[in-house]
Amino acid sequence: MPDLNKLSAADVAKGIAAKKFTAEAVVRDCLDRIAAREPTIHAFATIDPDYALMQARALDRMPSSKGPLHGVPIGVKDIINTEHLPTEMGSPLYKAHRSHGDAACVALARMAGAVILGKTVTAEFAGMFPGPTANPHNPAHTPGGSSSGSAAAVADFMVPVAYGTQTGGSVLRPAAFCGCVGYKPTFNLINRQGICFAAETLDTIGLLTRTIDDAELVTAVLINKPPAFFKRDTPPRLGLCRTPLWDTADDATKHAVEDAAKRLAAAGAPVKEIVLPEEFEKLYYTARETINNYERSKSMAADWQHHPDKISKVLGDRVKKGFAMKHEDYVAALQLAERCRARIDDAYGGIDAIISPCVKGEAPKGLNFTGEPAFQQFWTVLNGPAMSLPTHAGPQGLPVGIQLVAPRYRDDALFACARWVMEKLAH
Amino acid sequence: MPDLNKLSAADVAKGIAAKKFTAEAVVRDCLDRIAAREPTIHAFATIDPDYALMQARALDRMPSSKGPLHGVPIGVKDIINTEHLPTEMGSPLYKAHRSHGDAACVALARMAGAVILGKTVTAEFAGMFPGPTANPHNPAHTPGGSSSGSAAAVADFMVPVAYGTQTGGSVLRPAAFCGCVGYKPTFNLINRQGICFAAETLDTIGLLTRTIDDAELVTAVLINKPPAFFKRDTPPRLGLCRTPLWDTADDATKHAVEDAAKRLAAAGAPVKEIVLPEEFEKLYYTARETINNYERSKSMAADWQHHPDKISKVLGDRVKKGFAMKHEDYVAALQLAERCRARIDDAYGGIDAIISPCVKGEAPKGLNFTGEPAFQQFWTVLNGPAMSLPTHAGPQGLPVGIQLVAPRYRDDALFACARWVMEKLAH
Repeated sequence: MPDLNKLSAADVAKGIAAKKFTAEAVVRDCLDRIAAREPTIHAFATIDPDYALMQARALDRMPSSKGPLHGVPIGVKDIINTEHLPTEMGSPLYKAHRSHGDAACVALARMAGAVILGKTVTAEFAGMFPGPTANPHNPAHTPGGSSSGSAAAVADFMVPVAYGTQTGGSVLRPAAFCGCVGYKPTFNLINRQGICFAAETLDTIGLLTRTIDDAELVTAVLINKPPAFFKRDTPPRLGLCRTPLWDTADDATKHAVEDAAKRLAAAGAPVKEIVLPEEFEKLYYTARETINNYERSKSMAADWQHHPDKISKVLGDRVKKGFAMKHEDYVAALQLAERCRARIDDAYGGIDAIISPCVKGEAPKGLNFTGEPAFQQFWTVLNGPAMSLPTHAGPQGLPVGIQLVAPRYRDDALFACARWVMEKLAH
Repeated sequence: MPDLNKLSAADVAKGIAAKKFTAEAVVRDCLDRIAAREPTIHAFATIDPDYALMQARALDRMPSSKGPLHGVPIGVKDIINTEHLPTEMGSPLYKAHRSHGDAACVALARMAGAVILGKTVTAEFAGMFPGPTANPHNPAHTPGGSSSGSAAAVADFMVPVAYGTQTGGSVLRPAAFCGCVGYKPTFNLINRQGICFAAETLDTIGLLTRTIDDAELVTAVLINKPPAFFKRDTPPRLGLCRTPLWDTADDATKHAVEDAAKRLAAAGAPVKEIVLPEEFEKLYYTARETINNYERSKSMAADWQHHPDKISKVLGDRVKKGFAMKHEDYVAALQLAERCRARIDDAYGGIDAIISPCVKGEAPKGLNFTGEPAFQQFWTVLNGPAMSLPTHAGPQGLPVGIQLVAPRYRDDALFACARWVMEKLAH
């Protein structure tokens, strides 16, 4: 029997359906891995082995499959509500806090047979103040954030799939640093009932997985769409967008992006260099920050009012900036974002997906800073689907992902391009 | 001393600031009114007089004003989280449920000095299954819904201001039926942290008030913008849009809209008849329903999974329809809505605001049906600001509001037009 914790979600579901192993055996292997590695990695905020095994055994007793995720263990970022397990937001203000029930994305996974394995560490309120999680490739380095525990748990084979959320770069950055797949869908694709908002016009639920198929498999359950697992038989038409942030990237990232573009072109994909109109610089440097801070001050209003002392300085400063912000500036930022979303379609003309830098470089040393979010944020505000693909490594041997983005609602096309890209870069 | 419960929020704040009366006196008059009328009206799901008085006395003890709402009592729809008071969602599933703390809109009002007076009755999960609230103008008739208690409490002088939410017509319909002002801002203007979602791409927090100024006063606090209270000195350029639903309206509504248009034209406003492109019919008849049902099935997934028996038939049927819905149809509906939002700007060309029917007619008899939401829904999906103005009455003497709508983010212009319209129609 292989280590069942190393299987993909798709293979877990298939193996259980074929009665090769039980859901309980899968959960036990995941729990064993967690017991062995958690003292180093600290990926989980809450883990309740008895509760996980109870769910698995209930599934094993069922006469037929509950759904496409039957027996698949899932980690849930600790700003997403769950029944039975606390939701602590990475904040002392929510110590042992229990929500009324599951968030929509948790309930839908449960209805499809998933095992809710545990709550993964989040940076404070999905912001920049980190939890204790370490990078599985080198525990002296950050795993990224804010979906720190989700990325580390998946990359370290504790669980095949975990939920994250991305307001700036909170799914793709930890995925790139930990060397797994990070998928941020088109804005609002996955229902957000039951999550804690950071900035509600940007917050997007996403997935950390080890395979592209797993990202599509779980998404399919959440959006009520049979997964296509479409594989392109012709090369995609690719764009290469360095973004205005290119000069701030480390050599490791510049190499990853240029190497990918070169090898994919050699494999037959036309690669067109894309320079976005100047308006996009303002979108990134001013507007995204305005939207984020303004909305953050509102969503934090209750906690800020009563317990400013229990909120980190980095988050408190953002809240203060948000409260000082004029409503007119916020609306102007929203309207600029809308214009750029309409304009980005032109940039995609004749292109299936764009390759872009995902992170500044390798995961920084130390656990106090989850890394620069700029490269992920740039695309988040445009609302299209984005993936971090674990294609390269840097000089310290740590993973450096590349980012693949597609037009809004073209998540299917993104999956298909990502499969083609991963296949060609593996050779 | 006048009945302080009959004052507007603006006059409450002014009177307390001028030391004409205390916050405690205002709250006492509101509580007296509630004690006298609540056995007939049933506007409140939870009211805790001691807690309300405690807040008022704490404000009275402060050496200076806490903010622009100092001492203003506010009713909060029972799907919006509040500390101290339960949030029961109009559902037996949430009996005595306590949230962790205030929703953003409640926290921000509290920071500006508001007294959270109580939780107002909502239809089940802000849908169509009504609570016990009766229409203050005739308790044998529905107050409308789903913000039933908020509209009834404001119209019946129990509280000057109450929060509502609108996914289809849940702020404007009860306002029109109860004869108060209903204001649904531009989508996403008021932060939604801490509310229960019905359909998250439509849900909008709005206000029930007795004056237009009060709607602007409270909104200003929530969005961090000084209120302009702008009064037009020239007539606005108005549109008259009967919508494709015109033939379904009662004579009372047809009369209200046509009478308003005639008198406003006589007062100097150019009134241009507007016929929307055919695409808008599909938007209303198919797309809005698709978006609503699809998102409803997701946001209800946890409760539906565990307690389908405790969910009303009308809501359960909607959830089932939503679960059966294809993701492609949902995305097509979202995209149609986006196209129409872009196109509506053309319809507004040279027009400040559009007059449109608000309700089918007077509030129907009986408390089992909160009335037809079609006329409000039509504009909700277009995301612009909308107001119900208490301008007319029907043959049974019940209020019949007209609807005034404006382009997205032009909430200020809507307030100014609404003031002009109310002034001219009062003469």
